[in-house]
Amino acid sequence: MLLYLMTWIEVEEYLKRSPGIILPIGSTEQHGPTGLIGTDAICAEAIARGVGEATNAIVSPTISVGMALHHTGFPGTISLKPSTLIHVIQDYLVSLTRAGFTRFFFINGHGGNVATVKAAFSESYAYLWDLNIPNSDQVRCRLANWFTCKSVYQLAKQWYGDQEGSHATPSEVALTQYLYPEAIKNAPLAPNVASGHPIYGATDFRRRYPDGRMGSNPALAKPEHGQQLYEMAVKEMSQAYLEFLHTE
Amino acid sequence: MLLYLMTWIEVEEYLKRSPGIILPIGSTEQHGPTGLIGTDAICAEAIARGVGEATNAIVSPTISVGMALHHTGFPGTISLKPSTLIHVIQDYLVSLTRAGFTRFFFINGHGGNVATVKAAFSESYAYLWDLNIPNSDQVRCRLANWFTCKSVYQLAKQWYGDQEGSHATPSEVALTQYLYPEAIKNAPLAPNVASGHPIYGATDFRRRYPDGRMGSNPALAKPEHGQQLYEMAVKEMSQAYLEFLHTE
Amino acid sequence: MLLYLMTWIEVEEYLKRSPGIILPIGSTEQHGPTGLIGTDAICAEAIARGVGEATNAIVSPTISVGMALHHTGFPGTISLKPSTLIHVIQDYLVSLTRAGFTRFFFINGHGGNVATVKAAFSESYAYLWDLNIPNSDQVRCRLANWFTCKSVYQLAKQWYGDQEGSHATPSEVALTQYLYPEAIKNAPLAPNVASGHPIYGATDFRRRYPDGRMGSNPALAKPEHGQQLYEMAVKEMSQAYLEFLHTE
Amino acid sequence: MLLYLMTWIEVEEYLKRSPGIILPIGSTEQHGPTGLIGTDAICAEAIARGVGEATNAIVSPTISVGMALHHTGFPGTISLKPSTLIHVIQDYLVSLTRAGFTRFFFINGHGGNVATVKAAFSESYAYLWDLNIPNSDQVRCRLANWFTCKSVYQLAKQWYGDQEGSHATPSEVALTQYLYPEAIKNAPLAPNVASGHPIYGATDFRRRYPDGRMGSNPALAKPEHGQQLYEMAVKEMSQAYLEFLHTE
Amino acid sequence: MLLYLMTWIEVEEYLKRSPGIILPIGSTEQHGPTGLIGTDAICAEAIARGVGEATNAIVSPTISVGMALHHTGFPGTISLKPSTLIHVIQDYLVSLTRAGFTRFFFINGHGGNVATVKAAFSESYAYLWDLNIPNSDQVRCRLANWFTCKSVYQLAKQWYGDQEGSHATPSEVALTQYLYPEAIKNAPLAPNVASGHPIYGATDFRRRYPDGRMGSNPALAKPEHGQQLYEMAVKEMSQAYLEFLHTE
Amino acid sequence: MLLYLMTWIEVEEYLKRSPGIILPIGSTEQHGPTGLIGTDAICAEAIARGVGEATNAIVSPTISVGMALHHTGFPGTISLKPSTLIHVIQDYLVSLTRAGFTRFFFINGHGGNVATVKAAFSESYAYLWDLNIPNSDQVRCRLANWFTCKSVYQLAKQWYGDQEGSHATPSEVALTQYLYPEAIKNAPLAPNVASGHPIYGATDFRRRYPDGRMGSNPALAKPEHGQQLYEMAVKEMSQAYLEFLHTE
Repeated sequence: MLLYLMTWIEVEEYLKRSPGIILPIGSTEQHGPTGLIGTDAICAEAIARGVGEATNAIVSPTISVGMALHHTGFPGTISLKPSTLIHVIQDYLVSLTRAGFTRFFFINGHGGNVATVKAAFSESYAYLWDLNIPNSDQVRCRLANWFTCKSVYQLAKQWYGDQEGSHATPSEVALTQYLYPEAIKNAPLAPNVASGHPIYGATDFRRRYPDGRMGSNPALAKPEHGQQLYEMAVKEMSQAYLEFLHTE
Repeated sequence: MLLYLMTWIEVEEYLKRSPGIILPIGSTEQHGPTGLIGTDAICAEAIARGVGEATNAIVSPTISVGMALHHTGFPGTISLKPSTLIHVIQDYLVSLTRAGFTRFFFINGHGGNVATVKAAFSESYAYLWDLNIPNSDQVRCRLANWFTCKSVYQLAKQWYGDQEGSHATPSEVALTQYLYPEAIKNAPLAPNVASGHPIYGATDFRRRYPDGRMGSNPALAKPEHGQQLYEMAVKEMSQAYLEFLHTE
Repeated sequence: MLLYLMTWIEVEEYLKRSPGIILPIGSTEQHGPTGLIGTDAICAEAIARGVGEATNAIVSPTISVGMALHHTGFPGTISLKPSTLIHVIQDYLVSLTRAGFTRFFFINGHGGNVATVKAAFSESYAYLWDLNIPNSDQVRCRLANWFTCKSVYQLAKQWYGDQEGSHATPSEVALTQYLYPEAIKNAPLAPNVASGHPIYGATDFRRRYPDGRMGSNPALAKPEHGQQLYEMAVKEMSQAYLEFLHTE
Repeated sequence: MLLYLMTWIEVEEYLKRSPGIILPIGSTEQHGPTGLIGTDAICAEAIARGVGEATNAIVSPTISVGMALHHTGFPGTISLKPSTLIHVIQDYLVSLTRAGFTRFFFINGHGGNVATVKAAFSESYAYLWDLNIPNSDQVRCRLANWFTCKSVYQLAKQWYGDQEGSHATPSEVALTQYLYPEAIKNAPLAPNVASGHPIYGATDFRRRYPDGRMGSNPALAKPEHGQQLYEMAVKEMSQAYLEFLHTE
Repeated sequence: MLLYLMTWIEVEEYLKRSPGIILPIGSTEQHGPTGLIGTDAICAEAIARGVGEATNAIVSPTISVGMALHHTGFPGTISLKPSTLIHVIQDYLVSLTRAGFTRFFFINGHGGNVATVKAAFSESYAYLWDLNIPNSDQVRCRLANWFTCKSVYQLAKQWYGDQEGSHATPSEVALTQYLYPEAIKNAPLAPNVASGHPIYGATDFRRRYPDGRMGSNPALAKPEHGQQLYEMAVKEMSQAYLEFLHTE
Repeated sequence: MLLYLMTWIEVEEYLKRSPGIILPIGSTEQHGPTGLIGTDAICAEAIARGVGEATNAIVSPTISVGMALHHTGFPGTISLKPSTLIHVIQDYLVSLTRAGFTRFFFINGHGGNVATVKAAFSESYAYLWDLNIPNSDQVRCRLANWFTCKSVYQLAKQWYGDQEGSHATPSEVALTQYLYPEAIKNAPLAPNVASGHPIYGATDFRRRYPDGRMGSNPALAKPEHGQQLYEMAVKEMSQAYLEFLHTE
């Protein structure tokens, strides 16, 4: 169920049977010469919707701009500052907790969001405590990265080995190829891509990773890979959501 | 052109011929017993994409959660605080101005966003001045509400008269019916809907407008109305965008 | 009644009979070669005091510095950032709501304040809800611009036509002439004043409107016009305040 | 010269001969059963205007609401939070420094402002350094309390001795009596007023100082005392301002 | 070299040969019935000082209060909010970058800090970019947790197995026993300690982990273990610091 | 009792007999050619621990970085912005008030902290009121500077006269010499040190006070002076703490 296609009366009904909501969060950032700028949001949104269908849960609108400051040296990137994203997430949680939601399952498509989102959870638990909203002490948030699903991770390693890299990876590119076959891009990719993991500021990042990739070879991506990754991620995440919902 | 389906190299090319970008902004809020929670984001996004196609301009991801604090008494609503939304918009503008964009055309689907977005523009102009980014003094932002397009407004008045109301209006509901025919809702609508315009806090709002509508009769909406409204809005907005882009 | 000439005991008495307070808000900004920098604060304050006398209501000290960032390219302008003004207004409302006030009628002298003040109202309603102050859900704020009073607007159109312009207008200059006849200024005014409405950043503003006026001819202003405008504004605003106070 | 009665062109001229500006800052807070709520703003404003005349310096609009959180247990008090007041002062300084002012002489009427205003100066020096505004490293701020002028302090001690107290003092009440003889208040004053200096939160303050006074006997105040205090303060402050302006 | 025992002239000399500084960061939070509240700060500080000696590097004062909101249900815990800690770290980095430092090596003693500190790095890189401080684009920050040093981790697993747990662990307790043998505590420890990893808000945390431990058996800790862990951590961290300093 | 060497259970016990806590706050800033960068934190911490022992009170970890923006022109200085320090102190007070502490006695080693810390107290009282934590209206904070202890001040005047100066004073240097005899520094000190008290921004400060001292001759400092000052400060502060704790 997509929140944006529901009415408030349907949400009120839903809350009688479930306190859970799935929130996709991605990023709008460069993904190398062939990766889509929306890759992280596209992947998170598609998987979240799959999980929502599989588990009969509400899916919120996607937070499509996340924490990608280190990519802002490349045009097309849009990033929130961490302090802004913390307030965004807190505002979401305040609105939804007042309505009765208490289980927040964020499906994330971008490694760069992890630190800030976790910080936002901590900030929000404390703020909700301050507000004395009924049941606010029942609020629980979970951040689940689709790309670290065990099944996904293993398959990516098997298919791509070291060429998976850590940004603009063939696995995420494959997933977008499956979802948007009309937007598969071709561009020459230098064989010697800068690798290693250090990430500092935006100008340093562009010096260090001149075409935007980090050790990856997205030319290995195929739409049919994407389909498999999608299905595995949805399956694994659906189970994780249900456990989150039902475990004390 | 949708930013999220482009690569950073394509954006770099685009910037050689245009400094403009279209940014849809909506809201995630109750729209009465039959209106979709995503109405404002759905409308803004669809029209923005239409304008992007018509004018060959980049369209950013939709800001789907806006300033809807007064609707947070109804479940399903998600709102940013004005101060948060100001920071969100400022962060967007900093990222995009650093990349070379200087003309920002926001297509808005929600009256409640207007004040905050305008405040955000002012805050951002000053912040960009502070940063000394080259060309930051060329930055210009415009907020364009699809629902106040002259052609749209006139047609809505002609079709619905006073029953257009000011929230959960038949015109916006019609537009979502055209875009999502599978999500047309039916629910009994009391004939005597609370009307008037005063908006204060969230609990007051729910007392004052118990089913969420403000003077509107969305039962008058028809998908074919929505199509006409969509086409008119795209046409009028496209012209407005081009003028904005080319006028000194 | 001017708050600053009262004692706290008199305020305590007042609150037994009325929850209302009138808050003048202006700006400190350039008003062209002949307009006073304090024009917007002067007008708002004088009219607010007139309304206070006519309705036996308390008038707070004037917020004399508002949101005028776009005028900061001209010396003498002082502006708050929107985010600062939001906090200022919120702090006012928290102080006064704790004391028992719940009806806040802002009389505004500056178009540039409108967006930020409305955003501040939204932010404050939510914050007051968070605080759980008794009666905070009864709080209602209204922003009333003296220059958009129907009677004022019509008279200005009749007297000045297109030369009313949109900044440093003859009507506001006339009002200050009536109030401060000793400070009537003379300076040469170019006949071809830049007009149009676009407002972006401060450096752009000064380029676009080199002497600070926006399409206006303040040489048309006369003190006796000012008196009539003052009286009409006080009359119309007094009625608006009383309606605001007594309507559910 | 009052900034609000000047034009921007006059300010531009002024800046060719002086970088200085005088900024009155007061408070809007209870002053016991007979003291005016506006006492601190009234005194600061009147003395600042006197200094402005004596030294031919520009006087800005009064910051009439300051840091008075501890008085918010009494109706009529309006207070900014310290963090808000810091931003207000910083915004003033940014606006005025961009215009060319570099010597900021704050004339203060309220002890409770001192800490926050000094913190604001520190915050602002650093922020101006960050902005790289030309001459921002020449900016100097001074906070001058009229009530600690040596001549004022000595006279108050001589006239009132221990009954001067530390809030709602006869000296400040006398000054308002001189300035607003029409607003002299009478009310019974308990002879045993709570004294001592500790100030904590607002509810504690009202418990501790039930009628709002702190060890003072404002019944000793006389308008003619006020006149003398006014003249002495203006004289001493004018000299201090000129030294501030001219000393390296 | 401890920064607090140096003069500014010595720092100026140091900067001619090295741009690096080591910053210990811990937490002030409950560590079960026998763990010291300062455990995380004590460990980080001691190891940082050891690394400083081994590498001839400056060590800053310890950030002894970190992000421990989830522990605030237990008395003695002090926590910053994430948004506060972000500003603290940013302020440190601005001060030190202005002085010429560009390599910041944080030695961390608390898992709960990780997310916020990483978010702070991102926020700070962008802010330093905004400020245009010379060399600010050379700034690099690293967060190194002593407890995830490979050698430390392996030894802890070998000694304690599953009883290492994830909070109030025998390894960190051992380290404090080595450093403060006079403060070794004894208290009965229930054998069945709550385990699992979920961390939500503070009241939930105390319900879930009633004595503060998370799956750990600190009774296994011995001072001589602590000594070995200390030595290994210093050795491994020293190498990591030097690599960080010298690698492009 | 040092908080960092206690367990939460010991704190729980302590709170049954006392609501008081001592919080040392210093600064990390240049102290002239021979003064230690940590001088203010070292002094505050040592005296606070002495007071803690003498009064059987808990001593929190030292806030070792304070408000020293004006010293940031000298390498080695680290400063928080005032707005950051306000949030830090507020976070401390929220954590500790939730646990049951209500008497907060800050022992301060740095004049530059005074304004900000007092502002922080005001901000925090209001915030705690907002939160409705039980007993939050009992919270009382006190800021006590060791260097303005009457006994300390008199002795310093007697020993050093005018050469005490106002920064990098022989008295504070003596205290650090007593505490850290191994870190006594020697450097040539120009006899004509810049004096006077004006403090503006950081670049101005370094121009005005080129070696960092303000009118002081720290060459007069002796470790045995430091010991006497320490003992006097502990004695006087211990009495002040007990009075603070026990007075209504």
